[in-house]
Amino acid sequence: AIVRAVQTALAPASGPLAGRHVIVTSGPTHEPIDPVRYIANRSSGKQGHAIATAAARAGARVTLVSGPVNLPDPAGVEVRRVETAREMLAAVDAALPADVFIGAAAVADWRVEAAGDKIKKKKGDSPPALALVENPDILADVAARGRERPRLVIGFAAETENLLAHARDKLVRKRVDLIVANDVGSGVFGAGENEAHLVTAEGVESWPRLGKDEVASRLVARIATMLEASAGKGGAA
Amino acid sequence: AIVRAVQTALAPASGPLAGRHVIVTSGPTHEPIDPVRYIANRSSGKQGHAIATAAARAGARVTLVSGPVNLPDPAGVEVRRVETAREMLAAVDAALPADVFIGAAAVADWRVEAAGDKIKKKKGDSPPALALVENPDILADVAARGRERPRLVIGFAAETENLLAHARDKLVRKRVDLIVANDVGSGVFGAGENEAHLVTAEGVESWPRLGKDEVASRLVARIATMLEASAGKGGAA
Repeated sequence: AIVRAVQTALAPASGPLAGRHVIVTSGPTHEPIDPVRYIANRSSGKQGHAIATAAARAGARVTLVSGPVNLPDPAGVEVRRVETAREMLAAVDAALPADVFIGAAAVADWRVEAAGDKIKKKKGDSPPALALVENPDILADVAARGRERPRLVIGFAAETENLLAHARDKLVRKRVDLIVANDVGSGVFGAGENEAHLVTAEGVESWPRLGKDEVASRLVARIATMLEASAGKGGAA
Repeated sequence: AIVRAVQTALAPASGPLAGRHVIVTSGPTHEPIDPVRYIANRSSGKQGHAIATAAARAGARVTLVSGPVNLPDPAGVEVRRVETAREMLAAVDAALPADVFIGAAAVADWRVEAAGDKIKKKKGDSPPALALVENPDILADVAARGRERPRLVIGFAAETENLLAHARDKLVRKRVDLIVANDVGSGVFGAGENEAHLVTAEGVESWPRLGKDEVASRLVARIATMLEASAGKGGAA
């Protein structure tokens, strides 16, 4: 790992994403209920971290904004560790501008409204009601930027049913360029593999069940192609 | 680690807890909200795992019932992995009878009433309300057993204020023999050290800030003394 880090640091930026800045979010967010309790989700961060690694190998400068995960920092990547959705948005804000934004994190949709002192359980009391409020939608927020909008904004959809319909809806509603749709009914949370469907305005491309590293390499190759195509259509190249 | 495991397996049971069965719970519990979201807490399991290790070194047969942690299984200990409070209680039930029960896990006081399908966030919908219901109180449950009650039932209290008053209250209310009280206002969740106060019916003994391994060894030595004393007072010994 040290050898690779040194190689990465010394290597001249080359590869299909050389000169590009890519921001990747990864992992879950943790939303505090009180100082000891929190709401979490089962995202392992494996897919997001694999994408950050693949983008760095493709020559990009990569900022990885990661929720709490049990993964080593990928070599050659600048890692910002956060806990909550609001911290994640702030870290993405600070990392912009970028050519590509990849929202692979499983950002909590809601946080607890009044997270404060430790909730004491008292005998006879009924359990507390947890009032939730909406978290910022980081993907939609980044996609709606004006001059600061990355050329490519890519989101993930994890669904247990109606996967492609939900992914298409998300693509249009959040104005993103590509949705990577995963069926999470089959236990891929925390697993090493994904069955990914790439949903764009043009249509759907379904990949076989692949290792998350392989999904990451293919996605990075696709991103390079899309950036070239978008430059050809009148970008600043 | 392999050498130690073999030594432990081959060594004749000797030491101050030889011939005793000790059940230790450790770590947090995770209470599902839906298939991907859950409520967690910041317990690392370090203290509970250290106690299981120390009890095994003292010659005890140890069953460690652990919530989700990122710790290796201690050598020479039988480990049962669980996720929720109800699963933890069932595993403790299955492991009884025992001479000593040490409830070091941070068991969630509440679970989500109707954890079911993945909650879909829809635009314009207000956030869901999470209705909570009380979880079983594993410590009080074990302490209230009749013939199956372990000779020593030991609990933990983690408080941010009025530490000793809360610990004394817990001791009496749950009918346990010893409460290890920790001040969690000082960031010991996940840290390597604890400042422990041992609260019994006889009084309070305060220890200096110590490594969790050292807290574990001292607690195990204290348990051996208490078992001897209780045998002297008319136990079956």
